[in-house]
Amino acid sequence: MDKNAIQHILDTAKEEGRNALTPSEARQIASAYDIPHPQDRVASSTEEAVDIAAEFGFPVVMKVVSQEILHKTDAGGVITDVTDAESVREAYIKITESTRAFNADATIEGVQVQQQVSGSTELIVGGVTDPVFGKLVAFGLGGVLVEVLKDVTFRLAPTTEEKAAEMLNEIEGSQLLDGIRGQPGVNRVAIQSLITNISRLISDFPEISELDLNPVIASEDGVVAVDLRMLLNFEPAPARPRPSQDEILTAMTRIMKPKAVAVVGASAEDGKIGNSVMKNLIDGKYGGNLHPVHPKAEEILGQKCYPSVLDIPGDVDIAVFCIPARFVAGVIKECGEKGIAGAILIPSGFAEIGEHELQAEVVAAAQAAGVRLMGPNIYGFYHTHHNLCATFCTPYTERGGVALSSQSGGVGMAIVGFSRSAGMGVSAIVGLGNKADIDEDDLLTYFEDDPNTQVIAMHVEDLKDGRAFAEVASRVSRKKPVVVLKAGRTRLGAKAANSHTGALAGDDRVYDAVLRESGVVRVTSLNDMLEFARGLAILPTPKGENVLILTGAGGSGVLLSDACVDHGLSLMPMPDDLDAAFREFIPPFGAAGNPVDITGGEPPSTYEATIDLALNEDRIHSLILGYWHTIITPPMVFAELLGNCVEKARAKGIDKPVVCSLVGDVEIEEACDYLNTRNILAYPYTAEKPVAVLGAKYRWSRLSN
Amino acid sequence: MDKNAIQHILDTAKEEGRNALTPSEARQIASAYDIPHPQDRVASSTEEAVDIAAEFGFPVVMKVVSQEILHKTDAGGVITDVTDAESVREAYIKITESTRAFNADATIEGVQVQQQVSGSTELIVGGVTDPVFGKLVAFGLGGVLVEVLKDVTFRLAPTTEEKAAEMLNEIEGSQLLDGIRGQPGVNRVAIQSLITNISRLISDFPEISELDLNPVIASEDGVVAVDLRMLLNFEPAPARPRPSQDEILTAMTRIMKPKAVAVVGASAEDGKIGNSVMKNLIDGKYGGNLHPVHPKAEEILGQKCYPSVLDIPGDVDIAVFCIPARFVAGVIKECGEKGIAGAILIPSGFAEIGEHELQAEVVAAAQAAGVRLMGPNIYGFYHTHHNLCATFCTPYTERGGVALSSQSGGVGMAIVGFSRSAGMGVSAIVGLGNKADIDEDDLLTYFEDDPNTQVIAMHVEDLKDGRAFAEVASRVSRKKPVVVLKAGRTRLGAKAANSHTGALAGDDRVYDAVLRESGVVRVTSLNDMLEFARGLAILPTPKGENVLILTGAGGSGVLLSDACVDHGLSLMPMPDDLDAAFREFIPPFGAAGNPVDITGGEPPSTYEATIDLALNEDRIHSLILGYWHTIITPPMVFAELLGNCVEKARAKGIDKPVVCSLVGDVEIEEACDYLNTRNILAYPYTAEKPVAVLGAKYRWSRLSN
Repeated sequence: MDKNAIQHILDTAKEEGRNALTPSEARQIASAYDIPHPQDRVASSTEEAVDIAAEFGFPVVMKVVSQEILHKTDAGGVITDVTDAESVREAYIKITESTRAFNADATIEGVQVQQQVSGSTELIVGGVTDPVFGKLVAFGLGGVLVEVLKDVTFRLAPTTEEKAAEMLNEIEGSQLLDGIRGQPGVNRVAIQSLITNISRLISDFPEISELDLNPVIASEDGVVAVDLRMLLNFEPAPARPRPSQDEILTAMTRIMKPKAVAVVGASAEDGKIGNSVMKNLIDGKYGGNLHPVHPKAEEILGQKCYPSVLDIPGDVDIAVFCIPARFVAGVIKECGEKGIAGAILIPSGFAEIGEHELQAEVVAAAQAAGVRLMGPNIYGFYHTHHNLCATFCTPYTERGGVALSSQSGGVGMAIVGFSRSAGMGVSAIVGLGNKADIDEDDLLTYFEDDPNTQVIAMHVEDLKDGRAFAEVASRVSRKKPVVVLKAGRTRLGAKAANSHTGALAGDDRVYDAVLRESGVVRVTSLNDMLEFARGLAILPTPKGENVLILTGAGGSGVLLSDACVDHGLSLMPMPDDLDAAFREFIPPFGAAGNPVDITGGEPPSTYEATIDLALNEDRIHSLILGYWHTIITPPMVFAELLGNCVEKARAKGIDKPVVCSLVGDVEIEEACDYLNTRNILAYPYTAEKPVAVLGAKYRWSRLSN
Repeated sequence: MDKNAIQHILDTAKEEGRNALTPSEARQIASAYDIPHPQDRVASSTEEAVDIAAEFGFPVVMKVVSQEILHKTDAGGVITDVTDAESVREAYIKITESTRAFNADATIEGVQVQQQVSGSTELIVGGVTDPVFGKLVAFGLGGVLVEVLKDVTFRLAPTTEEKAAEMLNEIEGSQLLDGIRGQPGVNRVAIQSLITNISRLISDFPEISELDLNPVIASEDGVVAVDLRMLLNFEPAPARPRPSQDEILTAMTRIMKPKAVAVVGASAEDGKIGNSVMKNLIDGKYGGNLHPVHPKAEEILGQKCYPSVLDIPGDVDIAVFCIPARFVAGVIKECGEKGIAGAILIPSGFAEIGEHELQAEVVAAAQAAGVRLMGPNIYGFYHTHHNLCATFCTPYTERGGVALSSQSGGVGMAIVGFSRSAGMGVSAIVGLGNKADIDEDDLLTYFEDDPNTQVIAMHVEDLKDGRAFAEVASRVSRKKPVVVLKAGRTRLGAKAANSHTGALAGDDRVYDAVLRESGVVRVTSLNDMLEFARGLAILPTPKGENVLILTGAGGSGVLLSDACVDHGLSLMPMPDDLDAAFREFIPPFGAAGNPVDITGGEPPSTYEATIDLALNEDRIHSLILGYWHTIITPPMVFAELLGNCVEKARAKGIDKPVVCSLVGDVEIEEACDYLNTRNILAYPYTAEKPVAVLGAKYRWSRLSN
């Protein structure tokens, strides 16, 4: 059976106004895609059922066939373990009676007689059309487990055998697949093939909107999909328009590094947004041409004014809008005529307050004019390495390697405040607001090649085109860590669905799986987004999994070890020679091994010796220091000696991640500040945060490989 | 069958040197404790098996009977679904052959023929002797689930029907018990009875060390324990000596509020521990009698010295030890003669470096002398409301309502530093170190009635007597929140065990369940311990579950809502009249409902009006404020107006929990400080921390009810 034949089945269903395939149609398609399923046939009478069962061999499973009955079990429409002819007759009658009792209006087309499949493990494999990410393939433990424990995972379809193998490992009950307590394991290769085949099928035929193989019976020998269900949707959601990567890069480069900026609605009046934007551009020392646009004014804040962008001499790259929402579309048209690359739409009053039409009008105008839109409903954006403060907030110059975006203005302000307070160097802060046009994948495309950006962090409330995001993020995250705070995790989509896997579309689990697949370091809290962004930019990429904890207190070692397990870090098993090397420096009642506990009464020289040893040892890939305040080695003494050790190592070309937990009296805060200014990540009053940040660096380095 | 008969069975096993009961013995005991189990009998030949099966009715299950075979399934010693006489014969032969192949040395006593039980759901119920907590009853989803997903929970035995009902609800797969997709639910009452019966049995007969009912088949009608296994241990661990509550209170009161303090090993020499302790007591303005003890000195730091505690005139309540470990036991004896209540053992050099005998010697001396020991290997302790700094660390006076203890000296220093930095008021900080005697339950007993203590927070590495802790914590936590950081969560006990439930003893899940049962708010990080301790002391107890989020930004509302779900808080469904009341104050495009989004452009009056409304509305029990920096209502303006609103409400007797997330530029840090000094919990750059602390207050208020 070829693709044309499948298309014919789907077209027939469409013509007949059906949104589900019959079991027979589903089986034909399954055969074409190498989806193993048991032999079966529909009987229209008790005696026909007996004949079919005799032909297949006992036991058989019998199921009602009716368009109106979707959950057959609920209707009493399934009987298993039918072992002889008399039982077939009884089952046939019972099924039809139960189904009628369940739904008197259901048309019963017959009773399906199926080979009963035996195997140790029930799985579910399915396909789903997610509103954000499109076609996904799902895999989980079947039967009641998927419903109660929701132990299921996803990949973008089509997927590969390699990713399918990951899916088998990442479900919680993964161990079941290996067989436990004397039961044989299942055939993993067969499951992987099934997953990839399903993923191809739903990708090849987008009109198959939901597909459920539930249960799939897996055994040592292979898999059999006992129940196939395919639902159709012939009205797919329209795709969001998407420029090419080159087009994005060209436009975004002009937007992020403009040679000339127009401020539409510039104002001389204090307190107006058009005044704040002008001031911030000037106070931020923007070096390009700045052109206020105002219908009447001659000059604003010393800059010559023009009545329209069309009147500005020379090229203009971006126009920052500080005018009411209703005037935006008209000016966009002029921007197009002027050849302006981007409109920075600070104004609110669009979709966020229900004015969807007004926003659609602006988008249409921009598309017609060839102008990219940032916003609307944003604070604007900062590009520190270009001295650009195209925002009404505040001038800002904390230059560094982190690029951040936020959908919410508040998060933007949080970034500004946090970065100043924590000394996080920033390359850009971009407000995305309603994301009528420019969204995360445009920014990722720009920051991917921006030499000033080492880490990208994004606050996301919704992805307008999840698949585009996933594609770009998969590429970019191989080069630079991408940290995403997805807000609205816990608001489950209200989508009604008719299949098990369908019910999971829009679920946070989907976001989780796809973000992971895309190499994104997902965080669940604002503070983690900020701290991880800061930390990932500071920490070098570890060269391996071996983490060593070095501490002055056993109690610290225990808390740090707990945190390592929580954050997926591997404590290096201590080799004998290295153990001996550490023991040379620590008291006899100290503990080498890992954590290395140098004990609390040691002078600075012991810290120095052990830190030097750890830094210079190739087998140790990352170092966690648990400093606990002592009188013999006070906080600043520790900070300075650690700073010197790390500096010496860096001078020798040794640059491994070093994170510190400093615990003690208030002097440790000064010590942390000292270390942080030397790019050694240090936190006071916590054992967990430094380990969490190191864990994030490892997550990224594993995901991006 | 009465208890004597059971005791006889156990005594017989002991005499015979057995550590397991035979199936027949186990069944007799089960019958006595109303533990339902299927009819069964052991056959010694194929034909006897056929007769038994015919008597019980088909189908039957057949199982090998052999002392040497513990996991019968692994040995091929179990065959189910045996449906007729011929199959019984085949099964008998197959079982004996498989068992011999598995273990040629096993003595096969016969094959057990058992009624086959049908039911929808497999459970596991068991009893275990935990090294920390003693007898526990376990409940979980049975079969492979308990092994792969470890979905199991515990209660101290004996337990109640009410707690057994909680167990059914707290397993992850709880929904399975209600029946899903047309399957009937199970009989919860029968499971609860089974749990309580098991818990009585293992409590009544301590020599039953492990007990496994696996599986228990549950149906609508009831439960049947298909497989019973009981293991015996006739050498229980010795109990830790435990004074009565009155004795503890009398001694602890003298220790915590001493009228006279001796410093054994006081020194005039700067840098010595005996010097630091003297200085801290004097600089901390201790108001009682201070007696340095030194073999030769006349006077130290202006205080008259004595050569021995015995030479001190008048009563002495505590002696702070600043002498080497090897001299401790001798002085303890003198302390006893002097009638000293407590010895504060700062010295290290005991069990923590392997000197177990030296420590045992000190403990024996103290027991003989009637002296309680704090430590050894500690920093000492602070009791701020008594101006007592009996420690070598630093004088310290941050008075307030949080009492803290730590096993590690570093954590003690962290408490000192954090409390100064975050303004956490403290009543006491106590070092417990090796806990040779005084441990957490002694402290809980003291702080329970200490009027200066509102919250108790404890860093715990191990509980010396988990059952005593659980008993005291259950009582104290009803009055005051008890926060516990259990370090070493992820180091699994290495105990070898022969049963499913037995394998879970010492597991962190056990700690988790028992701490929860004891009303303890468990935390997993040092920073959470500190922040929760601070916050729980500030926040009043909420009068109900209705939480309202009030925010100036939709983005904040989303992050705060996520955090509420993460921390088990219930957002109040907004009643229509209250919705209308809020809408009077907010712009038409703002959102009432919950979160209430007043939008970002509002003046202080809108904040005031909506905060006042929320504070004065009885149906709202707790308030989460999401402030995001705006120019119209800057951070300090917000902080001051909020301070005023809360003060007005408090003056009217309205005191509900108010927590704030402040996000914006650096000015928000000052605003947070302002609010915190007014006992309104506020955090910068995080949406999650304030919600987590409120969540902890709710956890406590639910657990303690």
